[in-house]
Amino acid sequence: MIGRLIEKIKKTAPIVVGLDPDLSFVPEYLKEEAYGEHGETLEGAAGAIWRFNKGIVDAVCDLIPAVKPQSAMYERLGIEGIKVFEKTVSYCHEKGLVVIGDIKRGDIGSTSAAYAASHLGKVKIGSKEYSPFNEDFCTVNPYLGTDGIKPFLDVCKEQDKGIFVLVKTSNPSSGEFQDKLSDGLPMYHHVALKVNEWGRDLIEDDYSNVGAVVGATYPEVGKALREIMDKAFILVPGYGAQGAGAAELKPFFNRDGLGAIVNSSRGIIAAYKNKKYSEKYSERDFAAAARNAVMDMRDDILPVIGG
Amino acid sequence: MIGRLIEKIKKTAPIVVGLDPDLSFVPEYLKEEAYGEHGETLEGAAGAIWRFNKGIVDAVCDLIPAVKPQSAMYERLGIEGIKVFEKTVSYCHEKGLVVIGDIKRGDIGSTSAAYAASHLGKVKIGSKEYSPFNEDFCTVNPYLGTDGIKPFLDVCKEQDKGIFVLVKTSNPSSGEFQDKLSDGLPMYHHVALKVNEWGRDLIEDDYSNVGAVVGATYPEVGKALREIMDKAFILVPGYGAQGAGAAELKPFFNRDGLGAIVNSSRGIIAAYKNKKYSEKYSERDFAAAARNAVMDMRDDILPVIGG
Repeated sequence: MIGRLIEKIKKTAPIVVGLDPDLSFVPEYLKEEAYGEHGETLEGAAGAIWRFNKGIVDAVCDLIPAVKPQSAMYERLGIEGIKVFEKTVSYCHEKGLVVIGDIKRGDIGSTSAAYAASHLGKVKIGSKEYSPFNEDFCTVNPYLGTDGIKPFLDVCKEQDKGIFVLVKTSNPSSGEFQDKLSDGLPMYHHVALKVNEWGRDLIEDDYSNVGAVVGATYPEVGKALREIMDKAFILVPGYGAQGAGAAELKPFFNRDGLGAIVNSSRGIIAAYKNKKYSEKYSERDFAAAARNAVMDMRDDILPVIGG
Repeated sequence: MIGRLIEKIKKTAPIVVGLDPDLSFVPEYLKEEAYGEHGETLEGAAGAIWRFNKGIVDAVCDLIPAVKPQSAMYERLGIEGIKVFEKTVSYCHEKGLVVIGDIKRGDIGSTSAAYAASHLGKVKIGSKEYSPFNEDFCTVNPYLGTDGIKPFLDVCKEQDKGIFVLVKTSNPSSGEFQDKLSDGLPMYHHVALKVNEWGRDLIEDDYSNVGAVVGATYPEVGKALREIMDKAFILVPGYGAQGAGAAELKPFFNRDGLGAIVNSSRGIIAAYKNKKYSEKYSERDFAAAARNAVMDMRDDILPVIGG
């Protein structure tokens, strides 16, 4: 799957649009339409985020290789929200996009196997097989160690899928545990070494199907981790709304201009609310504003990353 | 909420039944019934685990204070499975049980807020409010640090709910990162200190609504953590099927016989498959076997823990 992602990046840009449809990002008129149909209910809210997602995806799908729906924003609306997660994954596949489920799951072995089957694999029911959520990649939490990751690796091998392991996250307090020094090295360094080990048998087109999440908000760490994890593709959150600019992104990339993919969520999907775009675009033009923001992001980062 | 859990423990036993309905645990006749209605589909499988859960809950609800549904086992069956998760939480509430959602979520602040609202809190849609999954407690992963935990604390305060933070998990490779020494102390010790800090303002009946997960498979660690986290209730997985016996549990409890609650999942719900019970109970008596296993667990641990 990493080969497919790389191929698509080469044709477009190393950008992933985070589909994190907080209700506050959704234009009022879309909420009114959906509430008109289903009332002020979880179903109504889910209907609104579905309209919103579809508008964004239609507007940007030719410019980007991948999307990253954040499961929390769907789970927040209960069953109705999770139906929209499923529908969004499926719609993005129709549009030819690679889908990275940002689910950050992680558990003991037998339980991780259930998550891996749910999100990347197949589930056997009697004589039939199903792919419940069918993402292409998902994010995983490493805190439980190898036996919590192994079931994901097995599914990646069997189904040609991939994972991104949380190594150094973009948030302000990520350092509390991730930066703690042990044997002279920060915890994220130890996790990075495991990422190499976990990904060793899953290499395709020079990169592994086992990638890493490293926040753009820590460019020095990104530089160190880029060197340590020479086969890992890095999924980089934190650009834009979280504070990092293009200059901070360079260390995450290899000389070939590959090796990383940068996420932007609200910077793209809520661009119409940003003063940079709000004069040009009304809320009814939220999708066009998102497209404009993707083009600006591309023009911002492509000259910096080289390749 | 911890006060309510303690009150119920005092009337029963410090036992939580893990509702982890792997399809291999579900009696064939229940699967046949459900597949007969819905075919060999995700809906059919979800129907089978619902019948199974209901049977178990009906049989054991008077003996225990709480249940712990494991979200992975439901997510594995897609939307239909998650509907059964929701239905199970709701049914357990009707039966007066405290529900600990074993979801192990954790993300950056704004995203954790969505998970916290989904599982413990309320979601505002226009002028209306909803509680999508409505568990009483949930498990959370600490790898992202304080800002990933803070939204859960806020919801716990507002809604009288609680969390159990993963500190030292029961699985074989939990030590890879959790045992790494930093400043002379293992990582789980650093996490435990944060658990104290996070729980300080959430104390009720001598214990905090911020508890910890510590595996029974590491009793020495349990002893140390019991002392460090004097206000934290400990959720203890790993008894029974994962290998720990009653003797290993003593260090997790305080002298008053409180301070911990021990989970057993397949040891209870799949008791009818265990040779200890399979002579006495056929698969049609799976619920009675589960009840017998809960009584045996109670008789096994109560004499050991004191209080």
